[in-house]
Amino acid sequence: MNSHVATRIEKFRENLDNASVDAGWIVRPENRRYLSGFKARDSQLDESSGSLLIGKDSLILVTDSRFSEEASHEAEGFQVEPYAGEFSKAFSKVVSRLGGRKIGFEKDYLTWGMHVRVSEALEKLDPPAKLAPLDGDVETLRRVKDVEELEAMKASARMIAVILDELVDWIQPGVTEREVAWHLAELANEAGAEGLSFPSIIASGPNSSLPHAVPSERRLGEGEPVVMDVGVLLDGYCSDMTRTVFIGEPADPFKTVYSVVRRAQQAALDVLRAGAVARDVDRAARKVIEEAGFGEYFGHGLGHGVGLAVHESPRLNPHDSTVLERGMVVTVEPGIYLPGKGGVRLEETVVVEEQGPRIITCCDRYYDW
Amino acid sequence: MNSHVATRIEKFRENLDNASVDAGWIVRPENRRYLSGFKARDSQLDESSGSLLIGKDSLILVTDSRFSEEASHEAEGFQVEPYAGEFSKAFSKVVSRLGGRKIGFEKDYLTWGMHVRVSEALEKLDPPAKLAPLDGDVETLRRVKDVEELEAMKASARMIAVILDELVDWIQPGVTEREVAWHLAELANEAGAEGLSFPSIIASGPNSSLPHAVPSERRLGEGEPVVMDVGVLLDGYCSDMTRTVFIGEPADPFKTVYSVVRRAQQAALDVLRAGAVARDVDRAARKVIEEAGFGEYFGHGLGHGVGLAVHESPRLNPHDSTVLERGMVVTVEPGIYLPGKGGVRLEETVVVEEQGPRIITCCDRYYDW
Repeated sequence: MNSHVATRIEKFRENLDNASVDAGWIVRPENRRYLSGFKARDSQLDESSGSLLIGKDSLILVTDSRFSEEASHEAEGFQVEPYAGEFSKAFSKVVSRLGGRKIGFEKDYLTWGMHVRVSEALEKLDPPAKLAPLDGDVETLRRVKDVEELEAMKASARMIAVILDELVDWIQPGVTEREVAWHLAELANEAGAEGLSFPSIIASGPNSSLPHAVPSERRLGEGEPVVMDVGVLLDGYCSDMTRTVFIGEPADPFKTVYSVVRRAQQAALDVLRAGAVARDVDRAARKVIEEAGFGEYFGHGLGHGVGLAVHESPRLNPHDSTVLERGMVVTVEPGIYLPGKGGVRLEETVVVEEQGPRIITCCDRYYDW
Repeated sequence: MNSHVATRIEKFRENLDNASVDAGWIVRPENRRYLSGFKARDSQLDESSGSLLIGKDSLILVTDSRFSEEASHEAEGFQVEPYAGEFSKAFSKVVSRLGGRKIGFEKDYLTWGMHVRVSEALEKLDPPAKLAPLDGDVETLRRVKDVEELEAMKASARMIAVILDELVDWIQPGVTEREVAWHLAELANEAGAEGLSFPSIIASGPNSSLPHAVPSERRLGEGEPVVMDVGVLLDGYCSDMTRTVFIGEPADPFKTVYSVVRRAQQAALDVLRAGAVARDVDRAARKVIEEAGFGEYFGHGLGHGVGLAVHESPRLNPHDSTVLERGMVVTVEPGIYLPGKGGVRLEETVVVEEQGPRIITCCDRYYDW
């Protein structure tokens, strides 16, 4: 087994001890991959590719015949238990054999219905077993990336930065948002990405005032903002970055708006380091935007953790009191959105280090306004 | 409001009455779109784009500022309630204003943790309210497609059939599975698809024995099976079809395997009509494969419903006792998978009609072996 995965399992087992459960049941695909190396993604919430059951001395992967071959190759050190039929029955048999009485589960992933079905099956065992909620355990472990993960994150970020750089040269007045999004997909495919880490946001003119705009048939025009929020998936890890570009001279008031957003981003980067509190980093950026009179037009948080999932813990927002640690990877993405007119968002992904942030989405596509 | 959506809401309200709840809380994106027209997809389970609250006389969509503009345009007849901060508090306030005491929820979609948080917020109301599980209500309504949905399903199926036809002409020995998958994505983009309905399966040679293979760098060779299981998303609706093709003469035993799978598919289509029981249709195909001596190599169910989700109710498998109704849309996809050698799967999507199935994935790419 890969030594990084072994360390993750060791830490997870300590958490199980602290929570007084005999084993942890892991279904969420990112958590499953993190703790086992099993790469499968789930096509739907009700179509799981497999469950890990991690006990003090056991590593079991319960899956069905469609995935057992891949599981055996990928989940080193795990005993693969193929099953057919009703999952809750198969799972409870494995628990019974293991001798577990209290099984921790992912409370913010497992559905209410699955919890009922598995609880009922566990109650029927002799001796009976039961489920107990884990409190975001694996998500908490995943916040601080290990060396292997940091390499994967940097490679993913490097790929999207090169692609975005090329895309900015490629755009011209008259191409549609959809065409830009498609060209990005082409570049990602050529570069060897596994896919995109999320549906690209390419939003021009008034569309750029919608933080989550879907690419449309609108044609890019001169002088208007074009927000490009994009990322690729590489070796399971997500990248995420945003630039706002203008073809020609920006119309009013976008030079001003741009420079405020850029200053806000810089203010956040200036205070972002190990030991800083997440909400204070948000505050540093938000203060700049508020003081420039645009406070009401920055409706979302400053950033979020990124890794196996594109949005994960911690959150850089006004409420998150997480103390940032070395090795966390977060986005810094202030924005100003003027309804009906347009918006500007600028986003870097950074690794938290002792002295400050290390930007990994390096792409010199900023204006000096 | 669109009359089809109005009819769906009317039926859903009847279900609420039968379940003795005051309102239904809908979070699952396909259900939300089905009952409101609100098109947003959720990027992650913990990042909902909005909740419907459908009472006897009220239609409310609770969402945050990122989506409220789209929600107002798309969810005709719904009152859009934007919120900020903690969802459970905002939601309980809406319930309180509505005067609801018992709110139905989607038990196989809502997470255990969200159920706890919302239940606690509802208990604090004066008078207190509580949650009650709905038993797959909307999924059951969605099984029988209305006229508008059938048109959308046919358009989506027609698009993928034309694309697959073109793709079969395009492949040649030496191209990789990944290149084939990418070319399909290109054709889908050119045709104006919103995207793919699932990650394409392009599996050649021994890879074709994995029902859920991921496209690899393997190059297609002569005489070996190439399983192509693909679909597009158009106007929110999924298509799904599979052909297995050979470049040149098939190596042994694939002519035999192919003809058995084709006969199994035909046997299922022969019995598939309104009034047939799902598991009997599965049986008809499975019997052909078993009698040819390949029973152990057909490990999955014969098919599944398809619509806003690519896999939905009913299931054509040995356990599903659903009586098929006119207007259901299901796949028929028998397969034989010989480990280490390769496999053959053939899949049509059909509309259930009184007299039999209407195939909507029309593409003449079968061999007459």
